[in-house]
Amino acid sequence: MRRCIKCKTPTGIFIPHHKLSLCKEHYVEWYQQRVETTIRKFRMFTRDDRILVAVSGGKDSLALWHALVSLGYEADGFIIDLGFGQFSEDSIHVSQKLASSLGRPLHVMDLNKEFYSINEIKKKDRRPICSICGTVKRYFINLYAKKLGYQVVATGHNLDDEVAVLLVNTLSWNVEYLRRQYPVLKEGNGFVRKIKPLCKTTEMENRTYVEVNEIEFVEYKCPYSKGATSIEYKKFIEDLENTSPGTKLRFYSEFLRKVYPLLQKGVEDQGVKPCKVCGEPTSGEVCAVCLIKQKMSG
Amino acid sequence: MRRCIKCKTPTGIFIPHHKLSLCKEHYVEWYQQRVETTIRKFRMFTRDDRILVAVSGGKDSLALWHALVSLGYEADGFIIDLGFGQFSEDSIHVSQKLASSLGRPLHVMDLNKEFYSINEIKKKDRRPICSICGTVKRYFINLYAKKLGYQVVATGHNLDDEVAVLLVNTLSWNVEYLRRQYPVLKEGNGFVRKIKPLCKTTEMENRTYVEVNEIEFVEYKCPYSKGATSIEYKKFIEDLENTSPGTKLRFYSEFLRKVYPLLQKGVEDQGVKPCKVCGEPTSGEVCAVCLIKQKMSG
Repeated sequence: MRRCIKCKTPTGIFIPHHKLSLCKEHYVEWYQQRVETTIRKFRMFTRDDRILVAVSGGKDSLALWHALVSLGYEADGFIIDLGFGQFSEDSIHVSQKLASSLGRPLHVMDLNKEFYSINEIKKKDRRPICSICGTVKRYFINLYAKKLGYQVVATGHNLDDEVAVLLVNTLSWNVEYLRRQYPVLKEGNGFVRKIKPLCKTTEMENRTYVEVNEIEFVEYKCPYSKGATSIEYKKFIEDLENTSPGTKLRFYSEFLRKVYPLLQKGVEDQGVKPCKVCGEPTSGEVCAVCLIKQKMSG
Repeated sequence: MRRCIKCKTPTGIFIPHHKLSLCKEHYVEWYQQRVETTIRKFRMFTRDDRILVAVSGGKDSLALWHALVSLGYEADGFIIDLGFGQFSEDSIHVSQKLASSLGRPLHVMDLNKEFYSINEIKKKDRRPICSICGTVKRYFINLYAKKLGYQVVATGHNLDDEVAVLLVNTLSWNVEYLRRQYPVLKEGNGFVRKIKPLCKTTEMENRTYVEVNEIEFVEYKCPYSKGATSIEYKKFIEDLENTSPGTKLRFYSEFLRKVYPLLQKGVEDQGVKPCKVCGEPTSGEVCAVCLIKQKMSG
């Protein structure tokens, strides 16, 4: 039986790439400290900022919210009711449970009431449903953060997410995307600041955190995510990680340290301007959400 | 049955990532043209340069030699007799056969006679045998090229080789290695120019080329190469290539086009100077081969 390196209590919790055995109590401490270190390293925010955590009901975003509040930050929740039946009901239910236990508000936006349901949009829009959903969520999260007076939006993207995206963008050397792959996207031009405080914690670490803290979360995936696209990438990375623990963290961290700065040189403003219809930021004339509105009424 | 896109002859030769069906004759023409394009694109050499092809007896280096001579370049062969029993005998035999058929000289260096056999060195040197062999080969190829009056050394590294190395260096973001991963290493400081004219042709394309031209080659691997290290990488890349043909070529070409130039900025001279013992170029005081000599006599 492994023992906690701090208090020698027998424990089943072990993090291979950090070679760490920790009891439940010290795991929570370690995890939160790791999130705090990430926040400071990337200067994500200070104690003066009001933070809106974009929660989905999954383990990552709930772990994030719990950790931020435990660390003493002023962090509230935001969830969009996507109207995906049981999935959305369960997602909102577990998020509300965490809100109560943290004593912080959860803002719920009803997409069907305030816009259109994703299913309705899908009937008139040929793009993959995940692409539509992503566009809509990004728009309304940013809009609501501003309306509600939050300076920063935090999302639960974990190391595995970041590594998979990094690998895809690297294999195609998509420099435009690579130069934006950073855990902080600065505010400005109508955007609030967006941050990923879990960018250096793995999916497994987040799972352990919610389990240890007995935080209820939605275990199953969104019914529309088939998740076929990145299976090869994730499998390859997992195999490498199992062979030599730390590969994932190194790939991501060294990118940020050595290559990301090289990609920033000579980059011009992306030409973001207010949408002609709603005034929200867009790179075109009319923003993606207003284009959907036009399709729906057309 | 597929048909050659040039002459409509039925053919079994198909190159998925170029979506090309070609008969034997037009395949040879296409392959040689591709090598020629690569030589020109990277300004590898001109018709005034004398080229030494480092051959191993394998399909890649023999395909290269055959193609260069067929394209009208003054290209001769060089092989090191490593003293690996049947493997070395077969390698030299097939290389000599090609030399005769091309009507070009093959220089053979007997490593056991002129230095030490790899097996002897291995007894006193703890490094992996492939690492020792690589060091020794690089030294003597460069030395002999200069002695024999060749300006350029060409090696048979293919796209699959380059992609595997690129992936390994990318996953660890080894910027020092990445900024040297180019199909031309310039001459200077005691080094002749080194080039890889097959950097954009796959192993399969080289195999097809030697088969179509009925060039005999050593099919089996060096008895000391276990080849375990990069299996996961090669398997992953093959899977991706099969799912979306062209992934390999894109990964490599786009790296050269977009990222390699970024890595060159602010790079200083690598501080190469003559070895204190033999005068050949080295980054230390004494070169790797003279260090081996010292170990052997010590």
